[in-house]
Amino acid sequence: MTFALDADALNAFLQDDFWQVKDTLIIEEVTDEGVIVRLKPTEEHLRPGATVSGPTMFMLADCAVYFAILSRIGMKPLTVTTNASIDYMRKPAANADLLCHVRLLKIGRVLAVGDCLIYSDGKSEPVATARMTYSIPPE
Amino acid sequence: MTFALDADALNAFLQDDFWQVKDTLIIEEVTDEGVIVRLKPTEEHLRPGATVSGPTMFMLADCAVYFAILSRIGMKPLTVTTNASIDYMRKPAANADLLCHVRLLKIGRVLAVGDCLIYSDGKSEPVATARMTYSIPPE
Amino acid sequence: MTFALDADALNAFLQDDFWQVKDTLIIEEVTDEGVIVRLKPTEEHLRPGATVSGPTMFMLADCAVYFAILSRIGMKPLTVTTNASIDYMRKPAANADLLCHVRLLKIGRVLAVGDCLIYSDGKSEPVATARMTYSIPPE
Amino acid sequence: MTFALDADALNAFLQDDFWQVKDTLIIEEVTDEGVIVRLKPTEEHLRPGATVSGPTMFMLADCAVYFAILSRIGMKPLTVTTNASIDYMRKPAANADLLCHVRLLKIGRVLAVGDCLIYSDGKSEPVATARMTYSIPPE
Repeated sequence: MTFALDADALNAFLQDDFWQVKDTLIIEEVTDEGVIVRLKPTEEHLRPGATVSGPTMFMLADCAVYFAILSRIGMKPLTVTTNASIDYMRKPAANADLLCHVRLLKIGRVLAVGDCLIYSDGKSEPVATARMTYSIPPE
Repeated sequence: MTFALDADALNAFLQDDFWQVKDTLIIEEVTDEGVIVRLKPTEEHLRPGATVSGPTMFMLADCAVYFAILSRIGMKPLTVTTNASIDYMRKPAANADLLCHVRLLKIGRVLAVGDCLIYSDGKSEPVATARMTYSIPPE
Repeated sequence: MTFALDADALNAFLQDDFWQVKDTLIIEEVTDEGVIVRLKPTEEHLRPGATVSGPTMFMLADCAVYFAILSRIGMKPLTVTTNASIDYMRKPAANADLLCHVRLLKIGRVLAVGDCLIYSDGKSEPVATARMTYSIPPE
Repeated sequence: MTFALDADALNAFLQDDFWQVKDTLIIEEVTDEGVIVRLKPTEEHLRPGATVSGPTMFMLADCAVYFAILSRIGMKPLTVTTNASIDYMRKPAANADLLCHVRLLKIGRVLAVGDCLIYSDGKSEPVATARMTYSIPPE
């Protein structure tokens, strides 16, 4: 399977255009299903107990599905989230990276849908799951 | 209507325990419906065009519903989000604060539900709407 | 405020084109906010204890937001649901009609968003709340 | 992997207690991930064009995740849906059964979460995806 953008291209885009999260997120791999993105939390992402906050997990899911879509449709940065839902299921492990595994479900002409499972690095049970819809700008 | 915690008490809690957002969020008013919370965006919350990012709106909604619940049940900081959904409907105004109007729909023994509308300050059409469920810890 | 379709027009459309629910749903009123729809449950909509089932409440919310959108945009029956979420908050009253109060939040060129609160007739606390997105077909 | 209830036990429960859908739904298989449920649509489930309606797909998802949870926790019929979301992604095939593949994500003491993909029988791209939370009654 070939992709419009690979992990190197997505990481370069992240470094250039997402200065707020450029030291936090890494696109690990573009996969047949979607993409895998790592979050390396810093102080600002943590809650008491050194676990990652809920809004940080949401940001991870939102960015990861976005990168998964771009890996298929190419550089259309004006693709925007229209709807998102998230379930927090378990407390993340303390002082651990998070890994977000995205699965693309639809890449339409106008709308794209993907979901993801978020894991504490090294654990097998997901801490959260999210599903997002994006609006793709017309050509 | 009397509340377990008023705006002053919630703002004091915010200053003490939410250092990441203490200069960003202000509880404007505890209302009969829920609460109104203001977001004063800083550089890190903005996207190109000086509009507030999607994850920042999610964080605002999540915090605002949390404060609304605490205004009713008192200081139970271990109340945690279990489910959240958000729809992004319009682009926020550039360089404007956001106001999040929360409406509490249920305060149960175990679960609480609230929704909110987010407005650019001075505008009448909402930019986003969200709904959250929180799990309330046992006594 | 004038509407593209009023309650009489919507009820006539319901009678003609929605035979499955034509004896179950009544558009009570088109309002400035959206619409109010009544569900008169029959045996098939009830769970043990004579309360309305969850999927029936979902159907009510889905139809009610659809009628609210048509009241604004006119007879575009190919408008379809793309996303929906629902929270069940309280057990409905036994042997009572349900009333669904819809609030339209956005009528865009391509997407429309509305939410609703569902009440047991005569009660003041909502039994459920839902939010729906619809895709509007091009002209 | 052994289960608290297998497909035969769940189908027997369906026949006895879900008269509204007993000729419509079949638990095909309890799996390591969750369960697979078939919907055999009848006239009342169809929209013009002989495709299954949105609320029918919601009902399928809701029942299927419920059966998946019971396959793990045993006969606790008072387990109830608290939150659900669904995305409709493609038009179902005309005159085709639907298959709902459930994946359980969490079976907690109080809350259970599962998601599902719904396919037209014989097709490889999902027509819809849903995620549900259930409240498990105390012992």
